[in-house]
Amino acid sequence: MNCEFCERDGGPVLWRDGFCRIVRAASKDYSGFCRVILNRHAREMTDLDATERRRLMHAVFACEAALRELFQPDKMNLASLGNQVPHLHWHVIARHAGDRHFPDAIWAAPRRAAASGDDARPAVSDAQLGERLAALLAAPSH
Amino acid sequence: MNCEFCERDGGPVLWRDGFCRIVRAASKDYSGFCRVILNRHAREMTDLDATERRRLMHAVFACEAALRELFQPDKMNLASLGNQVPHLHWHVIARHAGDRHFPDAIWAAPRRAAASGDDARPAVSDAQLGERLAALLAAPSH
Repeated sequence: MNCEFCERDGGPVLWRDGFCRIVRAASKDYSGFCRVILNRHAREMTDLDATERRRLMHAVFACEAALRELFQPDKMNLASLGNQVPHLHWHVIARHAGDRHFPDAIWAAPRRAAASGDDARPAVSDAQLGERLAALLAAPSH
Repeated sequence: MNCEFCERDGGPVLWRDGFCRIVRAASKDYSGFCRVILNRHAREMTDLDATERRRLMHAVFACEAALRELFQPDKMNLASLGNQVPHLHWHVIARHAGDRHFPDAIWAAPRRAAASGDDARPAVSDAQLGERLAALLAAPSH
């Protein structure tokens, strides 16, 4: 099939089940940046049935909740684009007012050389994030 | 409150109910670009309860379905950013391989001067879009 997200995890796996996985994005500018990736290959949310859509969004919102708790962002950003890798995945990004692109999308040209105020932000390990996700995702999805 | 989306609709309203509205974005590059805007003021999806989240996503996915039918895109893009207007709204964008930014996000620097192949794409009126949305959203949300 030659799809990047079918062949590889896409980053360190913080949480997974038989349906989807949550990985940490490799980003030097954004430490609070995860991806929620559907395990099977599908392109669009409307290619899933209603139950699958709900289940995937449940993981996305759990990821948002974990990042809000651990990174205290000024804004959360959620996006399912997939123009480059057309395999359903959600970007879940904790944004801060001093970050490299704020208030633009992280895909825009950067506004500043590097994130300011990063020193004041907590360093959050993969293990901490994974633990929080496991706790949040232990609750039923619907 | 001085919030743009509390004070104004945000574009021509294609569909609305007491909970949210779907407007057409003013975009010269993207005719298949809508926004789903929560009526009340809230910042993040995790500020909504589970029922509200499901209801808003139901409108987002109906919007995706309508745009897929009417614009036959190569990929759909969904995003809730709100860094500039922190009032919950979803961008729902039909993307084509020849469009101005493809395969980048529409917030990136453009790759080409203008969309190519636009002449081959159907012109879709607000009325057509609104009619399709009304039909799709007549179904129960959960």
